[in-house]
Amino acid sequence: MDETIAALERTLARFDPAHTELRKREGFQYQHPFPGVLEWMPVMEVGRQAVIKLVGYNPANVEGRGLPTILSTISLYDVTTGHLRALCDGTFPTALRTGAASAVASRHLARPDSRVLGLVGCGAQAVTQAHALSRLFPLERLLVHDRHPETARGFARRVDFLGLPVEAVPLERVEREADILCTATSVEVGAGPVISGTHLQPHVHINAVGSDLPGKTELPLDLLRRALVCPDYLPQALVEGECQQLQPGEIGPSLFELARASELGRRHHGRPTVFDSTGIALEDQVVIEVLLTHAQNLGIGRLLQLESLADDPRDPYGFLRTEGVLPEAARTDYRTQVTACES
Amino acid sequence: MDETIAALERTLARFDPAHTELRKREGFQYQHPFPGVLEWMPVMEVGRQAVIKLVGYNPANVEGRGLPTILSTISLYDVTTGHLRALCDGTFPTALRTGAASAVASRHLARPDSRVLGLVGCGAQAVTQAHALSRLFPLERLLVHDRHPETARGFARRVDFLGLPVEAVPLERVEREADILCTATSVEVGAGPVISGTHLQPHVHINAVGSDLPGKTELPLDLLRRALVCPDYLPQALVEGECQQLQPGEIGPSLFELARASELGRRHHGRPTVFDSTGIALEDQVVIEVLLTHAQNLGIGRLLQLESLADDPRDPYGFLRTEGVLPEAARTDYRTQVTACES
Repeated sequence: MDETIAALERTLARFDPAHTELRKREGFQYQHPFPGVLEWMPVMEVGRQAVIKLVGYNPANVEGRGLPTILSTISLYDVTTGHLRALCDGTFPTALRTGAASAVASRHLARPDSRVLGLVGCGAQAVTQAHALSRLFPLERLLVHDRHPETARGFARRVDFLGLPVEAVPLERVEREADILCTATSVEVGAGPVISGTHLQPHVHINAVGSDLPGKTELPLDLLRRALVCPDYLPQALVEGECQQLQPGEIGPSLFELARASELGRRHHGRPTVFDSTGIALEDQVVIEVLLTHAQNLGIGRLLQLESLADDPRDPYGFLRTEGVLPEAARTDYRTQVTACES
Repeated sequence: MDETIAALERTLARFDPAHTELRKREGFQYQHPFPGVLEWMPVMEVGRQAVIKLVGYNPANVEGRGLPTILSTISLYDVTTGHLRALCDGTFPTALRTGAASAVASRHLARPDSRVLGLVGCGAQAVTQAHALSRLFPLERLLVHDRHPETARGFARRVDFLGLPVEAVPLERVEREADILCTATSVEVGAGPVISGTHLQPHVHINAVGSDLPGKTELPLDLLRRALVCPDYLPQALVEGECQQLQPGEIGPSLFELARASELGRRHHGRPTVFDSTGIALEDQVVIEVLLTHAQNLGIGRLLQLESLADDPRDPYGFLRTEGVLPEAARTDYRTQVTACES
């Protein structure tokens, strides 16, 4: 987590659209058999590589099938050849980097002495929110709330590695006492907000993590209007984030701008701040590079010859010919690193 | 190939946008270190699955690195959960389905007694063009041309399995004698056309396969204007295909319309016909279903636990816990079929 936070902060601060082409998320949205989306999130480092995450968001997964709400895979392509260099699980990295993004934003927007973390929504993303923020702030306790009480009750076990007291409390107490508050819910489209916004501490910083679909928002409009709202990536936040509810003139500096010039956030202490986290492809690129480095050093994963190659690149049936063994280069240079969870 | 042609024709004829959401290709385009593109091609069968091909087009691959110009991988997602069901090579399937698409179009547009096939551009795609068309037409000979004479000379060996005479000839002879002509070149953006269009048989049918980028076209405008031009998928062909050169009113029925009502093509015999093949995600879906069925029946590929799953779907660190062995369902239902070329 520490490495991911540091690498993300560095990458955001150095971001240059001339060298990195970032796209907003696109995807399929569906209602049957269950509401969900399947989206692709591409980013390219010009002349080097492209990272594309395919991510499914299916809130019915947890209760119905014991699967995470967010399932995903990340592919890393060499843009000098089109070769798939690596394919990795994206489910764990998504949780990791979403936590790291809130940590980076909170470093610039929250009070450094924040001691009470409030969590509204106690699913998988809340675990990494708490983990990431615990690395930067002197947290003393966690107040948590979920519309499903058993989900809130189970949270303490999931974050036992933090060694912090966790209390499942009514929503109003989370709002009243939190120095930093994270909303990470699967609220239905059109059903928000998930907090009232009326009992908040004046200095509260909110990481609004759940808003990632048109119509899906977690925060009340009047709170957004009186807060400093910082989106991760404005073009996407205007479509899918809390920023859907705002006009462009009502929106503060982005996470990129905060990382480059921290005083943009610090200047606004005294009124609430909001990090509108929709999740961006650049975060996936950062986390997958961190994880792949470790996977390679630890020998995790396997190398597969995935693309159809043959001695004669002009012969699509070459791999079927008796003499069509794989060329030497394919045996060494053009395998795909498949990093599977089981290995 | 026969199965792919039949399945594609069936899928096109039955296509219903209420059941299948087809997207046009999007991607990254780059000039350095070599000109190329990396694109994603998504299609969703509502309530069932999504197929997404990631495809690189890098013409410098062949000479520089002995790799195919087109390298790709295809992923198949279950849209009821977001689970990656299968990951397969897309390089061979792309060639296969591009041939099959020309066969379907030619069945509706070319003379059934076409005996001379002309090929302009003798790379990997030309092999499957010749193969696919040989399955539907009484071909007697192949006349081939490539701007690199050695590529044309090597073509006979690559299609020796067809048992047809292959003659490398000047471009003008291909144009004069072909009943069916396929252009499948890596002509540079803005450098087209690749044929003159002045010596063609009046009944010629042309499968224009190479045009797949803004500015990349293979056929002269005056030929397009006097021909019946049938795109595979109009929204994409207007951006990337030969149809870039035309106004919507100058464009004939699409491949979908031909497959549903063959008389739309037959009515126009006597003037040239053009299939503007840009390559569509639906073709990838068809071919990967054909190939996966065979792979499963033949036991090709392997099952990997790719996504990070644990007993508690709300615990992203569950897989790290000592008790966090994979849940039973993950062991059976949620593995990814990775069909690698080597296996």
